[in-house]
Amino acid sequence: MKTTGIDSISFYVPSIYVDMEDLAEARNIAFEKLNKGLGLNKMAFADANEDAASFAANALFKLITENDINPKSVGRIYLGTESALDASKPTCTYAVEVVEQELSEKFGERCFKNCDVVDMTFACVGAVDALQNCIDWVNGGSNRNAIVIASDLAKYELNSGGEYTQGAGSVAFLIKENPSIISFSSSWGVASKSVGDFFKPRRHYDKSEMLKAAADLLGYEISSKQSKKIIDRTTSDFWSNSNKSFELFKEEPIFDGPYSNLCYQERIDEALEHFKSQQHTNFLIDWQFLVFHLPYAFQGRRMITKNWVEWLKENQALNLLTDEIGDFNEEDSSNWYKKASKSSLYRTFVEQRIAPGEKASSEIGNMYTASIFMSLLSLLNYAVESKIDIAGNKVGFLSYGSGSKSKIFQGSIESSWKKKLINSNLFSTLNNRTKISISTYESLHKNEAGKPVISDNFIKLSNIENGPLNLGLRKYSRTNE
Amino acid sequence: MKTTGIDSISFYVPSIYVDMEDLAEARNIAFEKLNKGLGLNKMAFADANEDAASFAANALFKLITENDINPKSVGRIYLGTESALDASKPTCTYAVEVVEQELSEKFGERCFKNCDVVDMTFACVGAVDALQNCIDWVNGGSNRNAIVIASDLAKYELNSGGEYTQGAGSVAFLIKENPSIISFSSSWGVASKSVGDFFKPRRHYDKSEMLKAAADLLGYEISSKQSKKIIDRTTSDFWSNSNKSFELFKEEPIFDGPYSNLCYQERIDEALEHFKSQQHTNFLIDWQFLVFHLPYAFQGRRMITKNWVEWLKENQALNLLTDEIGDFNEEDSSNWYKKASKSSLYRTFVEQRIAPGEKASSEIGNMYTASIFMSLLSLLNYAVESKIDIAGNKVGFLSYGSGSKSKIFQGSIESSWKKKLINSNLFSTLNNRTKISISTYESLHKNEAGKPVISDNFIKLSNIENGPLNLGLRKYSRTNE
Repeated sequence: MKTTGIDSISFYVPSIYVDMEDLAEARNIAFEKLNKGLGLNKMAFADANEDAASFAANALFKLITENDINPKSVGRIYLGTESALDASKPTCTYAVEVVEQELSEKFGERCFKNCDVVDMTFACVGAVDALQNCIDWVNGGSNRNAIVIASDLAKYELNSGGEYTQGAGSVAFLIKENPSIISFSSSWGVASKSVGDFFKPRRHYDKSEMLKAAADLLGYEISSKQSKKIIDRTTSDFWSNSNKSFELFKEEPIFDGPYSNLCYQERIDEALEHFKSQQHTNFLIDWQFLVFHLPYAFQGRRMITKNWVEWLKENQALNLLTDEIGDFNEEDSSNWYKKASKSSLYRTFVEQRIAPGEKASSEIGNMYTASIFMSLLSLLNYAVESKIDIAGNKVGFLSYGSGSKSKIFQGSIESSWKKKLINSNLFSTLNNRTKISISTYESLHKNEAGKPVISDNFIKLSNIENGPLNLGLRKYSRTNE
Repeated sequence: MKTTGIDSISFYVPSIYVDMEDLAEARNIAFEKLNKGLGLNKMAFADANEDAASFAANALFKLITENDINPKSVGRIYLGTESALDASKPTCTYAVEVVEQELSEKFGERCFKNCDVVDMTFACVGAVDALQNCIDWVNGGSNRNAIVIASDLAKYELNSGGEYTQGAGSVAFLIKENPSIISFSSSWGVASKSVGDFFKPRRHYDKSEMLKAAADLLGYEISSKQSKKIIDRTTSDFWSNSNKSFELFKEEPIFDGPYSNLCYQERIDEALEHFKSQQHTNFLIDWQFLVFHLPYAFQGRRMITKNWVEWLKENQALNLLTDEIGDFNEEDSSNWYKKASKSSLYRTFVEQRIAPGEKASSEIGNMYTASIFMSLLSLLNYAVESKIDIAGNKVGFLSYGSGSKSKIFQGSIESSWKKKLINSNLFSTLNNRTKISISTYESLHKNEAGKPVISDNFIKLSNIENGPLNLGLRKYSRTNE
């Protein structure tokens, strides 16, 4: 039978990071809470000349060159992102443009001329959607090669409750028949519900009110009528009245953390059920590893406890837990589940099946769409370093995107997985980054930095055009060129 | 052999429009230029409580109810748009949410619980991408139903060169096996190149400079240093310095019209060639109709003249043209092509094969992603009204998205096409809209109107939340509820 899945995989993570101990100290949070509680150690942060397109470009370039992929054999490059740089032009086109340029010496101009490129958007699950659609496309023909990129920049307000769950980076992978690393089963559990747990809206501000506010800041007082009159008269590009209101974009989301956790759990429950309706699965027995969307490293292990208890029941193995923590107590259920989550039985389950996929997240932080694929990379690199052969092992993928949707799918590790991972060097790469101070981080966060913190040989944003016909068009190149 | 394609199709166009004669007069443009030159007659415009999500919701609701589709049988709803309302939460979720609510009385809560929903973004070609991926998904299983929605709001600056190519609306259609209306061949010509012919970037303005500008408008002078100091101190949500710069979103694009036309032609040429490499096609003989992406009604006929001349040559029929306009003259080629475009031979070709797909565009204007599907609807409704049986006819689809990508594909009209179109009533619906004055239009354009111009029974935006945890979350409902 034809199998389809990931044949090679690469990543890019910014070369600078914030130490979580520094951030905890600066924000007066107990480091233990972040480190032992959420699994946070370091947080990748974008330099002044980095964005979701440059991350994607670096992962794409690395994937192609390190795996000797002929770019002309690639029929599509699909990007999942919620950090798009434009509302019309796909962020993927920017990444493909600079990589095409980089490859032109070897492959000539326009090596992606007949390549289908697009962005898919559904919060953190958009790249999973790209994966599923690329598998369908590969299955619909023969010898088709598709590349999926997940690239994002998770930025929250300074001093906010989300500040320590930031992160950044990209994962890119090649989808083909008879893949070397992992093949996917044809079942896809899907659950969706439109909610507002996390989103990135435009923010409307009335122009004349903002001019009034400006007058106030300057120590003067004007009426709304005066303000409106001034705006009606001006030709200032920013202030003139082609639109009554400003529509402000902010990279930082509007979100409700506890509600979002609830949505994550509910959608995953529903999608697991939908998956099971397509393919008989004993999640506890069949899945040797669980790979989650991880907004923070320990999100998966904290969200799946109740499901795990159900799985024990399904396998007539609940007594293994109740022997340790006592019988389930309806009236004190939240306390009982807390005990369950701290039981040695659960800790062993987590250590063996979930923790290998968490390790990279602890060093990077939230990568939005890329998190679940970085979790897979973490598991694979962990297996290489620990010299565990995982060939034939089944991996359950539990994805989630706010807004909200979960997709559950399953992969089977291929026998030749290791040869494509041996040079991945994920953990050594993460160990070789440059730490930045909290003040440098804050200055980057506010876009005050101006100059990038470091100079290296990666693809970065080199210019933003400002002519009347190309205002805002972005240009990328290698830093050292 | 299994065929896959469109089984039913619906649309939504705002109930208000601008008369192009009024706009021409207001802008001091010869109406002839717009009407005879570009094919423009009326321009649909969004009311104050309409957006790409409400358009999509109305088309989706109409598709489901008028065709007795069981929503629980729909496995995916994919939206192509370049007018997304949020950078993370798909605009499709908003449309699905209100339609799910509308259907709950008949089908219970959460009739789309296991439905895969997502946005795809590539300027005007994103819904074609959604179509192709939905076809692949339907082909990958049995009895699968997918809905594709194309929804957009084409808004250009007041008094700009793009003002008369605005428009708005949505088209939704059901993709399934053995479809009633049109089935698609498996060949997809693709050509892409990253360019900046048209895009919707964020616009960066330095905050302290904008406060300085405000002071200037108010008749005071402050230094950059003073301005920065004031901003550093303030707690004003708008002015406070969590980010050195404002990132302004504007619905209006940055674009270069002539360059975009060139990109349109080049990508379509390349994609036609790519299509032909997969499937032997004699475009002149095989395609009874050509359906284009139409930013304005006559774009297709104006862009395809050279290709048509090539097609004549391929069919040893160039003499039919040269007999009329004389031999090709290299030194005066642009003039020769102009004569070719005005020849009776070309006019007949246009009238028979392109014009049926243009008619709706003349009454609506630019619908971005929805334009090419509205063009198909136009052709189908024209055939119903003209009592032409087009069963078995082949339609060539020539799509384009700025940024840039073209996809060329082919459909074959099914024998039962007419029964699904008989109640479409496209042209009578378009004839029953309300004309608005130029001053009403301008006030809507500037978002100054406040109240909607009309009240009807369609789904509209009813509220935008403004609490700290849900700021910007959008709510939709029927106007009359």
